[in-house]
Amino acid sequence: MISRLIAEIQKKNAPVVVGLDPNMKFIPEQLVRDAAREIANTPNGDDELMIAANAVWRFNKEIIDAVCDLVPAVKPQSAMYEQFGVPGLMTYWRTIRYARERGLIVIGDVKRGDIGSTSEAYARAHLGRVSVGGHSVRVFDEDFATVNPYMGSDGIKPFIDVCNEQDRGIFVLVKTSNPSSGEFQDVLTQDGRPVYELVGEKVREWGELSMDGAYSNVGAVVGATYPEQAKRLRELMPNTFILAPGYGAQGAGAKDLACFFNKDGVGAIVNSSRGIIAAYTKEKYSKYGAEGFADAARAAAVDMVEDIRSAL
Amino acid sequence: MISRLIAEIQKKNAPVVVGLDPNMKFIPEQLVRDAAREIANTPNGDDELMIAANAVWRFNKEIIDAVCDLVPAVKPQSAMYEQFGVPGLMTYWRTIRYARERGLIVIGDVKRGDIGSTSEAYARAHLGRVSVGGHSVRVFDEDFATVNPYMGSDGIKPFIDVCNEQDRGIFVLVKTSNPSSGEFQDVLTQDGRPVYELVGEKVREWGELSMDGAYSNVGAVVGATYPEQAKRLRELMPNTFILAPGYGAQGAGAKDLACFFNKDGVGAIVNSSRGIIAAYTKEKYSKYGAEGFADAARAAAVDMVEDIRSAL
Repeated sequence: MISRLIAEIQKKNAPVVVGLDPNMKFIPEQLVRDAAREIANTPNGDDELMIAANAVWRFNKEIIDAVCDLVPAVKPQSAMYEQFGVPGLMTYWRTIRYARERGLIVIGDVKRGDIGSTSEAYARAHLGRVSVGGHSVRVFDEDFATVNPYMGSDGIKPFIDVCNEQDRGIFVLVKTSNPSSGEFQDVLTQDGRPVYELVGEKVREWGELSMDGAYSNVGAVVGATYPEQAKRLRELMPNTFILAPGYGAQGAGAKDLACFFNKDGVGAIVNSSRGIIAAYTKEKYSKYGAEGFADAARAAAVDMVEDIRSAL
Repeated sequence: MISRLIAEIQKKNAPVVVGLDPNMKFIPEQLVRDAAREIANTPNGDDELMIAANAVWRFNKEIIDAVCDLVPAVKPQSAMYEQFGVPGLMTYWRTIRYARERGLIVIGDVKRGDIGSTSEAYARAHLGRVSVGGHSVRVFDEDFATVNPYMGSDGIKPFIDVCNEQDRGIFVLVKTSNPSSGEFQDVLTQDGRPVYELVGEKVREWGELSMDGAYSNVGAVVGATYPEQAKRLRELMPNTFILAPGYGAQGAGAKDLACFFNKDGVGAIVNSSRGIIAAYTKEKYSKYGAEGFADAARAAAVDMVEDIRSAL
């Protein structure tokens, strides 16, 4: 699967993924009104979670249409759907399906992690097939999922098995983009190295179990906000593809990003969420207005792709 | 909320939580047939995920009825529902609602963890209220959720805020029950202490932000399979309530458990999942047969409560 992501990045000349983290604060009013009208004609006409979920679906659909020729992938963040309960997860599922229809690769930002048969259930839910009634069916059907390493190999191996069986991939959290990521990840161990380096080494090791060309289907999440750490991790994990969140809204700029890539300009994909999907709320793109939110997102995606290209 | 859990434990004299981790392998055939008949009468009559989810719901309902007077709490494991997609998550929601109706406290074993507004969305989805259309509504509505600490305070604080606002609680993964939990959790840091101790210290610190009587609403997950580490953590986190998975199927016995409790016999709750809900598949309870799965679960719960009491 990682070879497919790399091919799509090269085809579009854009190592950029658009994060679909919709928040009701920036879903235009009109979409909520349209959603309310649609839901009013169903048996659950006044269900507010259904209205919110439907508005998010409308929002995502327009964003996907606006950016699908510019970028290779989208990354829906499961929390933003889970907050609207079962209807929200229906929108998560519809969003994935629609993005795939539009030729996009889907990275499910689920940050799941558990042990043994439980991790296997998550892996099957997101990347694989589940056996029911003598058949095996796809469930959420992302191409990649993000995974939390805190429980060690028991939590990761079931994902790798499913990746190998179904040609899918994962990105393991190594050094996350948030301000407090150092609390445990940067703690120095007895040999003087921080915890995130140990995790990075394990990711390289796990990666050997699922190579796909020059890179592994087992990738790493390394925050764009930590270029120094990324430099070290890039050396430590030469065949590991990096998903780098934190560009834009979280403060990282293109100049910080070159070290996430290998010398051949491959090896990483940079995420922006609010910076693109809520672009119309920023001064730079305010001329589009709420009704032009998708055009604003497209303009912001064009600018971001240009910015990242310039850094490589 | 932790004071309510303690009161219920004392009322039932049972520091035991039943893990609802249903697996199709041990859902009796009859329930699947009943589910298929019910789903056949809906517009999605042949949807296999809906049939599986309905069978799980039937299974859970009988288990809850069989154990609700014996134990204070149940712990549904979200992966086992997520694997059946949107219908599975509907069953997760119905199970929570039904368990609450039967007077049980619900610990959502979701192991979520993210940053900032994303963690807040998970916290609202599971423990709080979400604002939509000018109202605020409850979503999955568990009493407690399990949370992953790898991202540090940014990932935990939004949960604590919701706990304080809604009188709910969390259990932070500190030392997990699985064989590979030591890969990162046991790594020694420069002052000679393992990573899980640093996490335990942070949990104690976070706990001070949400005290509720002698204990905090911020609890810890410490695997019953690691009594030595639990002893140390018990000292380090005197006001932290411990959720201890790993009893039974994962190998820990009652003799290992005394050190998870404080001297007053309070301070921990022990989970068993398959050991109770799949008891009918074990030789000891095989006389109940598949049709008596709920009675077998009840018998296994009685035995487990007795076993834990004897160790305290």
